Amino acid sequence: MPVGLSAPVELHPVPGIRLGIASAGIKKPGRRDLVLMELAVGSTCAAVFTRNAFCAAPVIVARAHLDAATPRYLLINTGNANAGTGEPGLRDARRCCANLARQMGCNETEVLPFSTGVIGEPLAVEKIEAALPAAQAALDAENWIAAANGIMTTDTIAKGASRQLEIEGKSITLTGIAKGAGMIRPDMATMLSYIATDAALPQALLHRALVDAVNASFNRITVDGDTSTNDSCVLVATGVSGVSISADSAAYTAFSAALTALCIELAQAIVRDGEGATKFITIEVAEGRDVSECLQVAYTIAHSPLVKTALFASDPNWGRILAAVGRAGLDNLVLEQVRVYLGSVCIVSAGSRDPAYTEAAGAAVMREEEILIRVLLGRGTASERIWTTDFSYDYVKINAEYRT
Amino acid sequence: MPVGLSAPVELHPVPGIRLGIASAGIKKPGRRDLVLMELAVGSTCAAVFTRNAFCAAPVIVARAHLDAATPRYLLINTGNANAGTGEPGLRDARRCCANLARQMGCNETEVLPFSTGVIGEPLAVEKIEAALPAAQAALDAENWIAAANGIMTTDTIAKGASRQLEIEGKSITLTGIAKGAGMIRPDMATMLSYIATDAALPQALLHRALVDAVNASFNRITVDGDTSTNDSCVLVATGVSGVSISADSAAYTAFSAALTALCIELAQAIVRDGEGATKFITIEVAEGRDVSECLQVAYTIAHSPLVKTALFASDPNWGRILAAVGRAGLDNLVLEQVRVYLGSVCIVSAGSRDPAYTEAAGAAVMREEEILIRVLLGRGTASERIWTTDFSYDYVKINAEYRT
Repeated sequence: MPVGLSAPVELHPVPGIRLGIASAGIKKPGRRDLVLMELAVGSTCAAVFTRNAFCAAPVIVARAHLDAATPRYLLINTGNANAGTGEPGLRDARRCCANLARQMGCNETEVLPFSTGVIGEPLAVEKIEAALPAAQAALDAENWIAAANGIMTTDTIAKGASRQLEIEGKSITLTGIAKGAGMIRPDMATMLSYIATDAALPQALLHRALVDAVNASFNRITVDGDTSTNDSCVLVATGVSGVSISADSAAYTAFSAALTALCIELAQAIVRDGEGATKFITIEVAEGRDVSECLQVAYTIAHSPLVKTALFASDPNWGRILAAVGRAGLDNLVLEQVRVYLGSVCIVSAGSRDPAYTEAAGAAVMREEEILIRVLLGRGTASERIWTTDFSYDYVKINAEYRT
Repeated sequence: MPVGLSAPVELHPVPGIRLGIASAGIKKPGRRDLVLMELAVGSTCAAVFTRNAFCAAPVIVARAHLDAATPRYLLINTGNANAGTGEPGLRDARRCCANLARQMGCNETEVLPFSTGVIGEPLAVEKIEAALPAAQAALDAENWIAAANGIMTTDTIAKGASRQLEIEGKSITLTGIAKGAGMIRPDMATMLSYIATDAALPQALLHRALVDAVNASFNRITVDGDTSTNDSCVLVATGVSGVSISADSAAYTAFSAALTALCIELAQAIVRDGEGATKFITIEVAEGRDVSECLQVAYTIAHSPLVKTALFASDPNWGRILAAVGRAGLDNLVLEQVRVYLGSVCIVSAGSRDPAYTEAAGAAVMREEEILIRVLLGRGTASERIWTTDFSYDYVKINAEYRT
């Protein structure tokens, strides 16, 4: 059960974008596992990809195609990641693009491929090719929710978000979908996310907006610390609204803020649906010397199996949080300056349990579904915030049984 | 159930060492939770401690006492770590030492305190003081196995090892005990380990031997990546055998090798009894540019919840191993040069699944209780080896219910 999250009931269509969903039966027969996204001529497109050294074949091909041309189509399959598949995997990804390009009458480099699912299995290219005509026939501007469902793997719920904002008297739309529940510790992007707007932005500016938004959202979440081989996040600007956004304008500031808010909503949705999650945890680390040490402390807490199992048990075992801060590798950290809060309850100050702390107060915070852990390092002005989950029996169950 | 490990049935006494065990009832009434170790006059003693920035009060006091004097007594309690306890915790640790010193007629600085158990609770000093006479009365050279039991927390089984070797025609003994099952990723030492020999070594040489042995053993294991606040490893040389070992001698080489072998046995025992462990995993990383990058890859694999749950499930899901190698942060890693083996079965070569690999062959290795994961990076001559466990339902259970 996702934590405080329900499936989107309405996502605004983005003029200039059509989506087609079809069933290729890649992993399970009948599963609607293929999503085709069509971008209007004249769109700009920016994307960020995983920094895992072993990025998947579709990531390599998508990067190369994006360098060579402006995309007209994104082709996304679930059920198979086409990662760890070597040269044959690259050929398979290119072959899917070429096949779709022939069908749609565009160049192969105008198609970006994306895959998610099991690593190391050959891609079922024939099944994908056979389903392409159905995906094309299904193309429709209203298909965002179906697409959000089509890209899921171990997700228990579809993830999407939508914003409309006024710019210079005209309304523009921002809509995005995302997937991911495990192997989540994005580094420059999340598992898979596709966002589109009908505003017009030059490619460089669109890229800057995307990088800024991703850094504040997808790059601030972790479920299990395992950065995926397939992380990709794409932002498309179709320009169909007629609203042009230029750098350093008030319009850009508004657009960028809306985009960041949308990305945070999607990123948090991934955490809320994290594998086996029963809690949604925010970790804030403040008073650090720099952002980097704040993140170091935050991720050490977020990845500690002992902290995560204590969160699952609703046990205010703050010694584990303190031990994690202590092993985060910060130079000359002074315990006596560190304060730790659970929600608004101060649990550690001056090097030991706060005098006013009671186990009952800590336990009350821990019983909540959404918990804030706040660490004040007492040695600077930098701060950071990340989101994560607890660690439950179901996490082990889901990942022990994933391939069976 | 520990993996391939049974409790020690015989540990050789070390002339010059007596051990007394008593029940202070710190966490559970009646539990034999207090261990006193007496060192013969003229012993030398070396120790290494946790590098967690928030080291526990007894670690701070033990370090200071070791700098000031040669210890005559080690006082070890389980049930409470006396960590995160601030100035009162330091006072409590010193008070226990002072009380024991009065009783035994030595200086307070000749006592080293050690604690293990829950973090953040005040130490029950009165209970410990009340049990000291009983611990003294119980002092006996034959008590090593009782002491190994006395220092346990979530351990399911006592851990000890013994060696005898001939040096210059005389027999010397090395005996050690250790505890630890969770919060295990030692950094300069393990949870708690006490080793003694009746050889005579000057303090500096003893320290060098200990550091070398610990680096090859306790500093090469991880259960959950959580470095404890209380890790301590102590090596005592009583000299009672009359055998003196000097630097750069053949005797030192033999002694050092025996000590390292003993530490590896104790360190592996901690992993075999790791919380919830159902498998004992060796991770070898070879052909690296340097030792540091080999360890980086090995620990990234060892800490990956996805790899650990796949090991629990006996699922040869090698994509997760490959993804962990890829996110380990190595510069310019070339996937095509990396090979991955499960036991003697090559699973990945030239960037994808090895042509000769079969799921059946991988599954056969994964069904074993003891599994070797071998990664060849193909870019150097350095290699490293660490030991770890899988991640089971019981790990979650043990740590969700630890304080209840």
